[in-house]
Amino acid sequence: MVRATGGASFREFIRTIPDFPRKGILFRDITPLLLNGPAFAGAIDVLYGRYAGKGIDKVVSVEARGFILGSVIAYKLGAGFVPVRKPGKLPAETIRESYTLEYGEDTLEMHTDAVQQGDSVLVVDDLLATGGTAVAASRLVERCGGTVRELAFLIGLPFLNGREKLLPRDVFTIIEYQDELL
Amino acid sequence: MVRATGGASFREFIRTIPDFPRKGILFRDITPLLLNGPAFAGAIDVLYGRYAGKGIDKVVSVEARGFILGSVIAYKLGAGFVPVRKPGKLPAETIRESYTLEYGEDTLEMHTDAVQQGDSVLVVDDLLATGGTAVAASRLVERCGGTVRELAFLIGLPFLNGREKLLPRDVFTIIEYQDELL
Repeated sequence: MVRATGGASFREFIRTIPDFPRKGILFRDITPLLLNGPAFAGAIDVLYGRYAGKGIDKVVSVEARGFILGSVIAYKLGAGFVPVRKPGKLPAETIRESYTLEYGEDTLEMHTDAVQQGDSVLVVDDLLATGGTAVAASRLVERCGGTVRELAFLIGLPFLNGREKLLPRDVFTIIEYQDELL
Repeated sequence: MVRATGGASFREFIRTIPDFPRKGILFRDITPLLLNGPAFAGAIDVLYGRYAGKGIDKVVSVEARGFILGSVIAYKLGAGFVPVRKPGKLPAETIRESYTLEYGEDTLEMHTDAVQQGDSVLVVDDLLATGGTAVAASRLVERCGGTVRELAFLIGLPFLNGREKLLPRDVFTIIEYQDELL
């Protein structure tokens, strides 16, 4: 794992909200970072600096917060942007992957024409928690013949072991939090 | 109204899907444009060129497709990015606006700390149809004391009269479609 040296300063712009979306969860809210132009740009530039010149063909992100970071990285890299969405949102032919939630399961879709055989793909999302959606997004890419070069997250929650679930794929996070208020 | 001179070429990257999400609707699918790095960058650059140096403080976009364009414009302008979301998604204190759908109504939320008195705000979304969500997003901004400098859309559907609903606010669209297949 590589930590961005700027991690400490980005952390000031993450707001922790206890008991959201339900009791016992510490929600890490990235909206104060997005609201601050220099902080938002700084986080993007850490990711851009890591992937520039690495031959990334496509950036894949899961709706909705993932779109906010992934689209900017795609633009900066000159890569295509691929939205992964909940069922029924994408209008053309899709493939699907289901993943397990605490109670039950959920499904993600990607257009079949989004990733081509041999594409080098970066998966970008705001948060790595249990890794369920990130694994599903990676499988969608790999089923189309793409290679997940790395998965990049603004925030990681290592106590939820998402990184292990994503092995052998590489994972990069800018900030990590333990399961405690600060 | 101002038309981007590049409109004709962006149009090649929009895929029209009949009867989605339901019979009789011609869905304008922007994912082929997003997938093509130069086309995506070109569309962003049209919007950036229009708003650079105009003192935009915040870019506001509605989930989920709006995030894809709005976040890149915010980054390019050095402005803050403000997500407007469906109810229950934003974790801190919010204000709400409801808008009418064909059957019933829906609601959007914005964090109360997202827009400040006097902020100059650009609203960005992928598509201007009937204008319901765009009016709701504008009202959220205005209730917080912000000024909507303009609303910018990749695609406009003028036969649905969204522009009239947004008056007296200014509206910019890159591509416009009539209600016909091409």
